Amino acid sequence: MRSPLAHVVIIGGGFAGIAAARGLANQRVSVTIIDRHNFHTFQPLLYQVATAGLEPADIAYPIRTIFGHQKNIRFRHGTVRSVDQERKVVLLSDQREVAFDYLIVATGTVASFFAIPGAREFALPLYTLADARRLRNRLLLSLEAAEVEGLHQRPRLNFVVVGGGPTGVETSGALSELIRIAIRRDGLSLRTDEVRIILADVAPRLLTAFPERASTYAKKELESMNVEVALRRGVVEVLEHSIKFDNGEELDTAAVVWAAGVTVNGTVAQALAPTSGPSGRAIVDGDLRLHGSAHVWVVGDAAAVPSGRGDLCAQLAPVAIQSGRHCAEQVLNVIGGRPTTAFMYHNKGIMATIGRNAAVAKLPRGGVITGILGWLAWLGLHLWYLVGFRNRLRVVINWTWRYFDWPSGPRLIVADVVSDD
Amino acid sequence: MRSPLAHVVIIGGGFAGIAAARGLANQRVSVTIIDRHNFHTFQPLLYQVATAGLEPADIAYPIRTIFGHQKNIRFRHGTVRSVDQERKVVLLSDQREVAFDYLIVATGTVASFFAIPGAREFALPLYTLADARRLRNRLLLSLEAAEVEGLHQRPRLNFVVVGGGPTGVETSGALSELIRIAIRRDGLSLRTDEVRIILADVAPRLLTAFPERASTYAKKELESMNVEVALRRGVVEVLEHSIKFDNGEELDTAAVVWAAGVTVNGTVAQALAPTSGPSGRAIVDGDLRLHGSAHVWVVGDAAAVPSGRGDLCAQLAPVAIQSGRHCAEQVLNVIGGRPTTAFMYHNKGIMATIGRNAAVAKLPRGGVITGILGWLAWLGLHLWYLVGFRNRLRVVINWTWRYFDWPSGPRLIVADVVSDD
Repeated sequence: MRSPLAHVVIIGGGFAGIAAARGLANQRVSVTIIDRHNFHTFQPLLYQVATAGLEPADIAYPIRTIFGHQKNIRFRHGTVRSVDQERKVVLLSDQREVAFDYLIVATGTVASFFAIPGAREFALPLYTLADARRLRNRLLLSLEAAEVEGLHQRPRLNFVVVGGGPTGVETSGALSELIRIAIRRDGLSLRTDEVRIILADVAPRLLTAFPERASTYAKKELESMNVEVALRRGVVEVLEHSIKFDNGEELDTAAVVWAAGVTVNGTVAQALAPTSGPSGRAIVDGDLRLHGSAHVWVVGDAAAVPSGRGDLCAQLAPVAIQSGRHCAEQVLNVIGGRPTTAFMYHNKGIMATIGRNAAVAKLPRGGVITGILGWLAWLGLHLWYLVGFRNRLRVVINWTWRYFDWPSGPRLIVADVVSDD
Repeated sequence: MRSPLAHVVIIGGGFAGIAAARGLANQRVSVTIIDRHNFHTFQPLLYQVATAGLEPADIAYPIRTIFGHQKNIRFRHGTVRSVDQERKVVLLSDQREVAFDYLIVATGTVASFFAIPGAREFALPLYTLADARRLRNRLLLSLEAAEVEGLHQRPRLNFVVVGGGPTGVETSGALSELIRIAIRRDGLSLRTDEVRIILADVAPRLLTAFPERASTYAKKELESMNVEVALRRGVVEVLEHSIKFDNGEELDTAAVVWAAGVTVNGTVAQALAPTSGPSGRAIVDGDLRLHGSAHVWVVGDAAAVPSGRGDLCAQLAPVAIQSGRHCAEQVLNVIGGRPTTAFMYHNKGIMATIGRNAAVAKLPRGGVITGILGWLAWLGLHLWYLVGFRNRLRVVINWTWRYFDWPSGPRLIVADVVSDD
């Protein structure tokens, strides 16, 4: 039963895909969102799930529920294998096809391992909820193992975070807090000086997207939390239980967190755009249509989104949201026979949190806020953007608990891989 | 470094083990709790995690955190392989040993499949948090699959719950609510009459531990929620996608939930007690010591706990808690050179919930409460016994949301088995 309305298929339920669908809600189009997960993930807080500050359900929201009352939006749970632009169909891994009149590709990014030997096999990226659970289990299990080891000899736990961007900075700060809480609250006999957290990056400073003042501040804050910041330090190889740096150092590791960079989420974007821009992103025109295509848009991290000022946007959540929203308008323009308009990015600034009471924000005009003020701004903004009132309520509860160091917190090791019969 | 204090090892961090440890907190003994999970699970609410009403972290609490401030209680993350009573050591699966002066075995139960072909392989039990997550993923994935199937033909979803005790009754009721919410809130196009929930038991009535009035009430309530109650119906075989009953019927199934019965959690209890009582439970003396042993106690579901009135206690949470508490006192009596005292069960009644506003409770003197009053009693009691104020707060939030049918809820499919790269 094909509806007489134009059918818009959106691949990906991240920030860009959800924003696009919202822009099409209650319009005279029929929309299908396809995602291999049945939920939208609030990626900026994944590192808090990984460091046992938040629960998966706090930062994820079922896509069906987001659009439960929008009769023109449907959800299709599945993995996209490729796109046939000629026949206008999306091919799923279950061999079924979904026909479209217009297609919005919002497939986002995955970790880039830069062909560093062992990185893909042994380092832990942090881009999906399953990644976050896996990393959390590894961190907590290594604390338990160190506790047992401590009965026999002096334990030594090294955690290495590769990548000094926001994800790396936030993860190493949160990891330091997790360990402090585990020792203070959970009665681990491990001592603080038996744990090293090393944040390594090849760049000469942290947070290169921010002004230098923010980098200096972040480094100082992290060091006060016992995070060792190793700059101009490249990774040569990752092994199962160790890492090799380009200064010749080799270190035993309990976990290597990979926050070094991203590349586009392969299959789909590649099928659409053999010629691609920086980091493999699809080249799109000013109206965000895939270059050379009349019916396909690419938005969010998967696209080399033009800012409207002659340069390209960075791969950021606000860009994903704004480009998703813009492309929905353009689809409606095309359907209505109106001319499309060019995307123009409204810079809202960028921010990264380092720990309790510490964050940095870069304002649209280049100014920098640091310290507790930046942290409060970070809190407010992240709560505001979380989908669903209940999720916000739960995140507030969890953050309050952790802030005041009250007992408990979701420090559970619930893995399918752990024996559980 | 062996402490000069007597070392009490507790195997198992369930109700009985935690109660025993609490009884030994701040006493002049050194205590080690061993569990293969790093958290205590509030088992009576597992079915709500399985039916996406609660999150894992709502009903689980890290064992370390429970005793974070009790300096004489330590936690050891590990799986026990066996016990050497001669040498007084517990052998772990990592080949390490833990020596004890006194041992408390509180290893609980696992599902019993009664040697029914295919049950172990294909039916889903519900005794651990990992079980609950697995069942939830199966239920939600089968709804998604039916949604896709519905694009091509009329879908048909059969869920079978085997076992008409509290777990089976509660799970089938909650499953019915999950499906109603998924259709009403999440916009599934599946129709109610395309889903069957069948609760099967060989017994002539549900909830055989309750008076007949409660059974009749439960059946009526479940049927009003579109659960088909099949009594005197035995299972002959479970297959990957179907089930065979003893009346010759064979039914395609999206999931078979196994709530048919329990047996003791093998390795340890068996190593200790080659002669065992009903359901494989260890035979213990009046003071809950393993029959014939001076240093080993067995408590909770793993033991055939004498009620103090000539019969045996059922395998219930209150019995686990009371027997754990009692055995802690007896360990202290033995250490202090005092005589031990016999366990006496204080019957607090039993209860089971069926759905919103519906529950049954059997009072200590045999009276029955049904309906909303029983349900409110059930709510209050379960909140009271949940460990930790934050967990209670979160459970209240989740229940309130579900009660009023507000959007969202933790209906996430987060599985390690689902592709997540």
